[in-house]
Amino acid sequence: MMRTRPLKVALLGCGVVGSEVARIMTTHADDLAARIGAPVELAGVAVRRPSKVREGIPADLVTTDATALVKRGDIDVVVEVIGGIEPARTLITTAFEHGASVVSANKALLAQDGAALHAAAEEHGKDLYYEAAVAGAIPLIRPLRESLAGDKINRVMGIVNGTTNFILDKMDSTGAGYQEALDEATALGYAEADPTADVEGFDAAAKAAILAGIAFHTRVRLDDVYREGMTEVTSADFASAKEMGCTIKLLAICERAADGGSVTARVHPAMIPLSHPLASVRGAYNAVFVESDASGQLMFYGPGAGGAPTASAVLGDLVAVCRNKLSGTTGPGESAYAALPVSSMGEVVTRYHISLDVADKPGVLAQVATVFAEHGVSIDTVRQQGKAGEASLVVVTHRASDASLNGTVEALRSLDTVRGVASIMRVEGE
Amino acid sequence: MMRTRPLKVALLGCGVVGSEVARIMTTHADDLAARIGAPVELAGVAVRRPSKVREGIPADLVTTDATALVKRGDIDVVVEVIGGIEPARTLITTAFEHGASVVSANKALLAQDGAALHAAAEEHGKDLYYEAAVAGAIPLIRPLRESLAGDKINRVMGIVNGTTNFILDKMDSTGAGYQEALDEATALGYAEADPTADVEGFDAAAKAAILAGIAFHTRVRLDDVYREGMTEVTSADFASAKEMGCTIKLLAICERAADGGSVTARVHPAMIPLSHPLASVRGAYNAVFVESDASGQLMFYGPGAGGAPTASAVLGDLVAVCRNKLSGTTGPGESAYAALPVSSMGEVVTRYHISLDVADKPGVLAQVATVFAEHGVSIDTVRQQGKAGEASLVVVTHRASDASLNGTVEALRSLDTVRGVASIMRVEGE
Repeated sequence: MMRTRPLKVALLGCGVVGSEVARIMTTHADDLAARIGAPVELAGVAVRRPSKVREGIPADLVTTDATALVKRGDIDVVVEVIGGIEPARTLITTAFEHGASVVSANKALLAQDGAALHAAAEEHGKDLYYEAAVAGAIPLIRPLRESLAGDKINRVMGIVNGTTNFILDKMDSTGAGYQEALDEATALGYAEADPTADVEGFDAAAKAAILAGIAFHTRVRLDDVYREGMTEVTSADFASAKEMGCTIKLLAICERAADGGSVTARVHPAMIPLSHPLASVRGAYNAVFVESDASGQLMFYGPGAGGAPTASAVLGDLVAVCRNKLSGTTGPGESAYAALPVSSMGEVVTRYHISLDVADKPGVLAQVATVFAEHGVSIDTVRQQGKAGEASLVVVTHRASDASLNGTVEALRSLDTVRGVASIMRVEGE
Repeated sequence: MMRTRPLKVALLGCGVVGSEVARIMTTHADDLAARIGAPVELAGVAVRRPSKVREGIPADLVTTDATALVKRGDIDVVVEVIGGIEPARTLITTAFEHGASVVSANKALLAQDGAALHAAAEEHGKDLYYEAAVAGAIPLIRPLRESLAGDKINRVMGIVNGTTNFILDKMDSTGAGYQEALDEATALGYAEADPTADVEGFDAAAKAAILAGIAFHTRVRLDDVYREGMTEVTSADFASAKEMGCTIKLLAICERAADGGSVTARVHPAMIPLSHPLASVRGAYNAVFVESDASGQLMFYGPGAGGAPTASAVLGDLVAVCRNKLSGTTGPGESAYAALPVSSMGEVVTRYHISLDVADKPGVLAQVATVFAEHGVSIDTVRQQGKAGEASLVVVTHRASDASLNGTVEALRSLDTVRGVASIMRVEGE
């Protein structure tokens, strides 16, 4: 039963993702209509530079006045692919006020203001969908929110930033240093001119906040996410990882505490065993590993960015929102009923790989081991390498809290026989 | 806003999966209620052996009269985990007639009668959900049907049977023969006493039919799926695969033809490169690789069977169906609008690895090469090994149709110099 009056879509932003959304809406119009049950029509495209020629987009649809577009009143769905906090936030809330549902790919905004935006959507009886905000085309939000709605998720651990995975994969496979690998990523278009958001983990932290919120039915804000970038990872770290049968990935990890009473979210580089499915995620690909009570271990893998993959996620949401509109309903909104406390990084429990430069004389190992013991950090293995009066100690611990580890490292630094802490890296996925 | 009158669930079957569904409904009752917006209550459990003690299930809920249970009229959702065609089919249609939506894990029934069951659901305005029918806990139906609803899927290729993957993985890693690996799978509970449905590919074929139907918006029946089991795979095949940098997996492959005008679905053992993500799927795990126009390559990985993982999928559907019920709507029904023709196996195009036992004399290779050429099958590589009057030829072809390959093999068999065709295996995933 096909409705003939088309659903009207306003597109905010027509860059890499927006132009693909517009293209697919045109080239796949018949399929979209059949799947939705009504045709969808591109009713307007808000851009910053109207003079730019945009193939396939009629000039009379293009406007620089995004506010007027979302206020038109006849728009069914607003697709927001501008990114950033403002004007995206105001445009989205204005869209709700004027009768439109919203599909967004805006991870930064969702991570910062997800609760308020969900509340605005609910107040106006509209949908807010954002599959494209996390890991591009990989279906994640919908599986976590719907497929696993009858399960208890305990951990979400993933590679959710393609740029940093490309850089780390390059360092791993070629022995290149960080700067060299970053330069290649930039040259190939995988890294932006200012790579800060990627390499310092801000992008991954936003995604971690969104994933943790959905997985644990708890509001997790960007500020709740511990964040450590990967600019300090060296080829020596990769060599250490190889000796452990590991590689190094920048991971976003959302965990429920063992007692179930709190959750944590963090982003940092970590060693993971080569046998772990995340270890073999190459290049700019993303993958997210989900552990839950009943389903066990699931993994979702695919391209985490790019115009077409992100557009695929946007269009999947567009179809769902249009179907909801036709059937007079809305999809699942925010689910934050569990309202678990979000613990700080100090309470995170994991294993650590620590390299120390020490004096090469008797008794150093005993001294170091005593410091670990005093802080309640149990040592799994220790390896001592010495030459010409200098030595290095590589310590791998059993599971200990981040706070205990920090206390240990501080005490180690104050030992005369410890000349420096060369590196500290968490070991995950075991 | 919590509704206090509970939604009533009837459970048909209380075996490995059903008992887990009942257990989770009880232990996670508060979470389910919060996520649905109303409590769910187990209103009845239909079993064959009522005398069996079922921990956690009140005896007064147990009945042997499944028909009376689905006819009660106050049931909101029927969960069917009996399996098989009858009585499951009649119970499901009776459920729709008496006002219930249905969540099923029944791959055989869905593959055979999916269209009729969807029609019955639609006629009565009810939901039919079956995420658990394909690949256990791995979210697949929902991502294909909803997340990728704005994309064009070209290929779905997966390991969708854990028993056979366990056996093949064992053969690959230990050099065991088929029978030895099967015996171990049986001893460990991975294979049933009668393993036919698994090892002959019937189980995977049912899943392929369901996946192809959803991926291509086209009705694909079980009879449309080409099926070849894996009982003939030998350690020699694994040795050949290793020489090619490949391993062997039993694959379900659903493809859109290059011209887009038709689709195929098939199940058979095949060589795939070790670098392909499916190659590293170990033990009884399942994984499905999806290729589409915009999203590129996605993979979904997890446990493909087992009580708890399958129950997780059932409960995810239960939450969705209950939410739909509360909002007075239904989810997406059957989508078969594309109605593409399903081509026969002869039209499938892929690569082949063929081992021939030939006479060790001059001119044999030329003869064999001529036969390939006459049938339009282009040779990629050929390797000749000879000793004591006997020789083997290993031919790897470029892409050719199954019909051409069959013609080639028939002609080869009629050559005096070809003593036998030792093995033919398809090469996929390149």
